[in-house]
Amino acid sequence: MYGLIGRIKAVPGQREALSTILMEGASSMPGCLSYVVALDPADPDALWVTEVWDSEASHKASLALPVVKDAITRGKPLIAAFDQYIQTVPVGGHGLRATI
Amino acid sequence: MYGLIGRIKAVPGQREALSTILMEGASSMPGCLSYVVALDPADPDALWVTEVWDSEASHKASLALPVVKDAITRGKPLIAAFDQYIQTVPVGGHGLRATI
Repeated sequence: MYGLIGRIKAVPGQREALSTILMEGASSMPGCLSYVVALDPADPDALWVTEVWDSEASHKASLALPVVKDAITRGKPLIAAFDQYIQTVPVGGHGLRATI
Repeated sequence: MYGLIGRIKAVPGQREALSTILMEGASSMPGCLSYVVALDPADPDALWVTEVWDSEASHKASLALPVVKDAITRGKPLIAAFDQYIQTVPVGGHGLRATI
């Protein structure tokens, strides 16, 4: 498995709009086992995104999906910075759900 | 929802044993929507644990479950340090699975 833990700073006032865009395509990405968007309670502009994929290839392939490309186009102007971007190797747990 | 993102340093050589213990109770904790254990590819002793709960109360209550208390007893000697412990407010996504 392939995992990502990222912290994104939204343009001030745009965190909610950005989180909605990020979640839109989350359930229709082949190979995506988990994709969770969370607010950072310590920073009104920060979001955490945690992802689990069956492989790094599935993650890369998702970037070419129309739903994801559209989300990137709409989300990009709302992002101020990616301030953490951590790759992981998930080994298991609960809530890893295959896409249809 | 209530989320946690934690980075745990295992005692050298004990990361695999610790990850196994952490995962054992993951699917039987009421209110736990996601609990993923991942290796840090940049540090042979580090693990990431990402959790999503329906509420902070469910997370706190889980600490009293026999399966969790037992895991804590067995896992504690294998932990060198908790070096990050971040609380989040998950808003949604994919892979959030209710416990039975």
